[in-house]
Amino acid sequence: MDSSGRLSPYSFHLRDTGPDYLLLRVLYCGLDHTDLHQINGELASSTTKYPLVPGHEVVGEVVELGSEVKTFTLGDIVGAGGIIDSCGECNLCNSNLEQYCNHRVWAYNDVYKDGTPTHGGFSSFISIHHRFAVKIPQKLAPEMATPLLCAGVTAYSPLKQFMGSETVFRGGILGLGGVGHLGVMIAKAMGHHVTVISSSDKKKEEALHYLRADDFLVSTNEDEMKRAANSLDYILDTVPAFHSLESYLSLLKPEGKLLIVGAAPQRLQFFASELITGKKAIMGSLLGSIKETEELLNFWVEKGLTTMIEVVKMEYVNEAFERMKRGDVKYRFVLDVAGSNLE
Amino acid sequence: MDSSGRLSPYSFHLRDTGPDYLLLRVLYCGLDHTDLHQINGELASSTTKYPLVPGHEVVGEVVELGSEVKTFTLGDIVGAGGIIDSCGECNLCNSNLEQYCNHRVWAYNDVYKDGTPTHGGFSSFISIHHRFAVKIPQKLAPEMATPLLCAGVTAYSPLKQFMGSETVFRGGILGLGGVGHLGVMIAKAMGHHVTVISSSDKKKEEALHYLRADDFLVSTNEDEMKRAANSLDYILDTVPAFHSLESYLSLLKPEGKLLIVGAAPQRLQFFASELITGKKAIMGSLLGSIKETEELLNFWVEKGLTTMIEVVKMEYVNEAFERMKRGDVKYRFVLDVAGSNLE
Repeated sequence: MDSSGRLSPYSFHLRDTGPDYLLLRVLYCGLDHTDLHQINGELASSTTKYPLVPGHEVVGEVVELGSEVKTFTLGDIVGAGGIIDSCGECNLCNSNLEQYCNHRVWAYNDVYKDGTPTHGGFSSFISIHHRFAVKIPQKLAPEMATPLLCAGVTAYSPLKQFMGSETVFRGGILGLGGVGHLGVMIAKAMGHHVTVISSSDKKKEEALHYLRADDFLVSTNEDEMKRAANSLDYILDTVPAFHSLESYLSLLKPEGKLLIVGAAPQRLQFFASELITGKKAIMGSLLGSIKETEELLNFWVEKGLTTMIEVVKMEYVNEAFERMKRGDVKYRFVLDVAGSNLE
Repeated sequence: MDSSGRLSPYSFHLRDTGPDYLLLRVLYCGLDHTDLHQINGELASSTTKYPLVPGHEVVGEVVELGSEVKTFTLGDIVGAGGIIDSCGECNLCNSNLEQYCNHRVWAYNDVYKDGTPTHGGFSSFISIHHRFAVKIPQKLAPEMATPLLCAGVTAYSPLKQFMGSETVFRGGILGLGGVGHLGVMIAKAMGHHVTVISSSDKKKEEALHYLRADDFLVSTNEDEMKRAANSLDYILDTVPAFHSLESYLSLLKPEGKLLIVGAAPQRLQFFASELITGKKAIMGSLLGSIKETEELLNFWVEKGLTTMIEVVKMEYVNEAFERMKRGDVKYRFVLDVAGSNLE
């Protein structure tokens, strides 16, 4: 309701399901740091408009279908992520880059094309364009799918370029939050040699034994960092706060890529000579396409991966956000929306 | 001889031509801004050791062959660029990325593998590893080839990724110096739509009518810049001084690339959100491989391009550098070394 960020019950009228839209009865919804910053009005990139219904890792059941929708039927279990509509006509929309469309519509704190506000998955129902729904494979439990719909595909989309080669790529993962821990799991499942990079050794045990990373590097240890210079094909940088890029760029091999998926509000800095003399690149990536989300869900099933989540009821949501702030969750809270009393 | 940067005659003994080396009698040598900064001891990346013989865009005649050299014969007219040796054994050397080899040897102000100093092309003779020599096509005048060996291939190497597609790529060129003007010509010859970006309209006439660019954009004109937002597939950024990247990144389309080839001594800055929300990339590139240099020379002949140079004698070299400082050359001074009195 306001920038205290404290969630409380809220009733609203949802727009009528348009001809191209689906109405979902929400089953589960993941909790993400973006939600936390958005409800507190802390996002530099987007002003929070209250009241707001957060939630953008949604799995739900199709309970109403627009007249033009041919690809889904009532009762389908589908997922939705951070974006729920776009223009549908531009080159980007037509080449599986719809998340970069200039007219993308965010799952909440945005407006539908008809001008009504979008509301997210902490809600009994949500309304999304059918192009932004992805079928959840039968072999994947719906609650297990939720973190993949945003955090997972955010890691998968830039990592995909290193998939399917005979080369054993050497990757680094910077930050072990929602995106980072899935990044480790996905990169391992792709067959990469994975190094977790962290500012202290607090997460070493966790990275090596729990997430099965191959190596752990403490970025504040200059000797370790020097020994690891020129050793990585990529670093997935999930840190959404200011950090100096110099030491990380030096870890990259020639042609290595720093894949940035976390948006620090401050400017990041680099020396051009580091990029030039090593043919290195800094690349940004936002979420993933719906096609990539489908690929990831199937990849998850095929590789027999397990999502690490803690399922909680809606009445626990404020405490869950408090624990997220403290980093006290391994790795993702998922709200059991359908099983909660929302009245 | 010292950081006054004033060139004067200097005699030295050149090392014996090793089994894998060529001795060239220098015909022509280009003058480049890196030479200017190096002779003045102004390069942040490399301390100048005096006395120094500059010059790294060299065309010469093979006058001595190492016993192991099979690919050249006496009398061949060959070119050499900024790098004249490397380890020859690493993955980079074996995959046409030898300019990124950790053991690359620069044409001057460096040392050969035997520890003797390298000296550049402002000299009667130079000694280079045969792997770093490129044959000059018969249809190309030797003096015309010189600017292509460093400045030209520096533009060609990163632009090559946009070559050979049916798409008419829209490219921007930032900076109209040695690399930039060749960038315009190469990009045009590749069939791109080329926009020159400059801080004032002083070079508009020159860019549009002399270099045949398609468009001209004044980066200090906010309205123009806004209209051009999201319009370019790439920008070749040749500016070797600090500049804010924000306005240039905003010109790129989704998946657009900022190709950095000029190394500012200060850190450059960017907002991660700009890269993330547009899937944009900042990429560095150094010179080009020998293979790419050969490609460029053939491309130049095939497309019937003319290098714009001003050929001068050695006794003019100090004045030429003074004029370069003032930007008073279109576009490249080339020393007629063989035609000068070097005594």
